[in-house]
Amino acid sequence: MKSLRPLSHSFAILTLLFGMVCCAPKTENAVEDPTNSREIAGASEPLPSWNDVASKQAIIDFVEDVTNPQSPNFIEEQSRIATFDNDGTLWSEQPVYFQFFFVIDRIKSMAEDHPEWKNEQPYKAILENDMPTLMQQGMPGLLKVVMTTHAGITTDEFDKIVKDWIASAKHPTKNRPYTDLVFQPMLELVKYLQEYDFKVFIVSGGGIDFMRPWAEEVYGISRDRIVGSSIKTEYDYNEGNPVIKRLPEIDLIDDKEGKPIGIHRYIGRKPVFAAGNSDGDLQMLRWSAANELKNFQLYVHHTDSLREWAYDRGSHIGGFDKGWDEASEKGWTLVDMKNDWKVIYPYELDTVK
Amino acid sequence: MKSLRPLSHSFAILTLLFGMVCCAPKTENAVEDPTNSREIAGASEPLPSWNDVASKQAIIDFVEDVTNPQSPNFIEEQSRIATFDNDGTLWSEQPVYFQFFFVIDRIKSMAEDHPEWKNEQPYKAILENDMPTLMQQGMPGLLKVVMTTHAGITTDEFDKIVKDWIASAKHPTKNRPYTDLVFQPMLELVKYLQEYDFKVFIVSGGGIDFMRPWAEEVYGISRDRIVGSSIKTEYDYNEGNPVIKRLPEIDLIDDKEGKPIGIHRYIGRKPVFAAGNSDGDLQMLRWSAANELKNFQLYVHHTDSLREWAYDRGSHIGGFDKGWDEASEKGWTLVDMKNDWKVIYPYELDTVK
Repeated sequence: MKSLRPLSHSFAILTLLFGMVCCAPKTENAVEDPTNSREIAGASEPLPSWNDVASKQAIIDFVEDVTNPQSPNFIEEQSRIATFDNDGTLWSEQPVYFQFFFVIDRIKSMAEDHPEWKNEQPYKAILENDMPTLMQQGMPGLLKVVMTTHAGITTDEFDKIVKDWIASAKHPTKNRPYTDLVFQPMLELVKYLQEYDFKVFIVSGGGIDFMRPWAEEVYGISRDRIVGSSIKTEYDYNEGNPVIKRLPEIDLIDDKEGKPIGIHRYIGRKPVFAAGNSDGDLQMLRWSAANELKNFQLYVHHTDSLREWAYDRGSHIGGFDKGWDEASEKGWTLVDMKNDWKVIYPYELDTVK
Repeated sequence: MKSLRPLSHSFAILTLLFGMVCCAPKTENAVEDPTNSREIAGASEPLPSWNDVASKQAIIDFVEDVTNPQSPNFIEEQSRIATFDNDGTLWSEQPVYFQFFFVIDRIKSMAEDHPEWKNEQPYKAILENDMPTLMQQGMPGLLKVVMTTHAGITTDEFDKIVKDWIASAKHPTKNRPYTDLVFQPMLELVKYLQEYDFKVFIVSGGGIDFMRPWAEEVYGISRDRIVGSSIKTEYDYNEGNPVIKRLPEIDLIDDKEGKPIGIHRYIGRKPVFAAGNSDGDLQMLRWSAANELKNFQLYVHHTDSLREWAYDRGSHIGGFDKGWDEASEKGWTLVDMKNDWKVIYPYELDTVK
C-alpha cells in the first residue's frame, strides 16, 4: 500500500461521518481468569501490568473510595457506569483505524462479483492499492465504500463477515491478528472495574456492529454494553424467516458530541469513570465530569514509539489538543504508555516473566 | 374526564408515532428479595402467584431445559436474552396507556405559564377535560401535546419531572399510584429468569426516558436494559455545565416492526424468551422465534374483567388479531390472567395469604 500516513487525517474526518473501529485477539482468558498463566507474577495485585505510578494509584484510590460503603463518596452499584473509547484506548489505531482495513479487504473480496469496479472509482483505487487516489475521492468516495461494505446485507450476514475477517486478517506492519493489538493494561483495568461491580461499556466512534462480533470475547464486555456508530436498519418478515437489513444511511455518529448522545441513548446514566485518548473523547469525559457523583477521567497518551506508536497534539489520528489542555487544566489522569505500562500487548507478557 | 374509551384506538395509533407507556409501585422488595413478606407462602417454589397451570409448567420446563449444561438445548449465559413488552404485559394499560395520563397531567401543570392555551387547541380541550375534542385534533394535535410535554427540556429535567409525577399521580378509576398496577406474577417471572442468569430487557412502545426513572426500582431491570420509543437529542456544552436537550423529533418508534429494530440496536442478539400482549409485540415474538437457539414465546391474555380488564381481538387497545392467530397456530404460550394467576397486583398479596 502506498503511503498510509496521509490517511490518518482524512480518516479522522470519516470517523465523524461513520466511525471506524476494529478488532482484538482471543485474550479471553486474560480477561476472564485472574490466574491466567499469561499474567505477570503477583497477579493478585490489581493492575499487574502497570508500573507503580501515579496513574495506577489514582485509579485504585478512586475505585476503593467509591465502593467503600463507609465513604462519603460511596456510589451504589447501579450508578457505577464506566465508559471506554476503543480505538487508541483499548487497542491500537495506527497507521489508521483498523476498521478501515476491513473496508479495504472487503472491497477486494467483493470485487470478484463486481468486474465493473476495475474501472470505477473509488473501487479502482482500492483494488490497485492506490491510497492517494482513494483520498482524492474525498468524503463521498469514502462514504461510498463504507456503505458498500457495511450495508445491503442482513445483520446476521454482516456479523458473520466480520467474524470471518477478524479471525484471518493481519495488521500490515505488526503482522499479527488485529485482536493481538489490544492493550493488556487496559484489559486489566476493565476487569478490575468489573470486579468492583462497575458496568463497563465501550463507547466508540467505530461501528457498533463491527465491534460486537469479537469485542465480547476479547474484552469481556457483552454485546449489549457496546455502543458505537450505526447505520439504519429495516425489519423484513421475509415470508416467515425474518431478517434485519442494513441500510446505507447513517443513524448515529458516536464520536465527539455523539458520545454523550450515545451514552444517554444506550445507558441512560452519566458515567462515573470515562477513558479515552483523543479530542473525540473529550465530550464523553466532560459528560462524566458533569456527574454529581464522584467521577474519574482518564486519557491514554501514546508515548511509546518502539512498542506501540508515539503521537499526540496535531499529529494525533483523532486530534489531541483541546483534550490535552483540558486534562492538564482539570487534573484528569494522563497515562503515559511508555513509562506507566510494563507491557503494551498481551503477547509481550511471556517476555517479561 | 368525558369518555376515555374512544381514546383507546387513537392512542394505539399514537403508539406507532411515539409510543406511550407509564409507571408502577415500589415493589422493589418483591422483586429483589425472595423472602419478602409480601410474597405468597411457599416462596421457595418458583412463580408462587401462578396457579399450577400449563403456562407455568411450560415456562419452568423451558428454563430448566436451556440452563441445564447436560441438555442438548443448553444456552450459554451470554445468549440468555429475555425481552418483555411493558404496557399490558408488565402492568395494566386501561383505560389508555398510562403515559397518556402523564401527558394530560403535564399539560395541566404547565398551563400556568401558558395562559394562551385557554384558547388554543389541542391544549384547550385537555384543560377542559374534553377528550372528544382532543381526539378531533387527530394525530397532529396528539403529536403536538406529546412533544410539548416530552421535548424542549434537558434529559435531567425530564427525568425529574417523570419521577415527581409517578410518585404523586393516581390511576383515574383504581385510585392507586400507577406503579401499584404492575402484575405480580410477571414480577416473579422477571426475577425467576434473572435467577437463572437471563438478561431481562423491557422492549416497549412506550417512551424509553419515561420508563427509566421508575422501572429500575419497580421491576428490578436496570436503565441500560430498558428499550423504548425515543426522540432525538442534542448535546450542549452549556459553558462548562453540559446538558443533553430533548428535541421535538422522533428517533425510534419501538413498536411492531420497530421492536426487532430496537432489539438489534440495544441488545445485538435475538432473544430466546419474548413476552407481549398485543399485535404490537408480534414482530418481537417472531424475531425470538427466528433464533437458532431454543426459544419461548408468551402472550398475556387479558381475561379478568373483575380484577383487571377483559379485552382482546378487535377490542384490544393495541389490537390482538394476528398475534392471537399466530400464537394458536405455532403453539406459543397463552397466559389466561383470570385462570392462571392467583393475584394480579402486588397489593392483592395480603388478601390471599
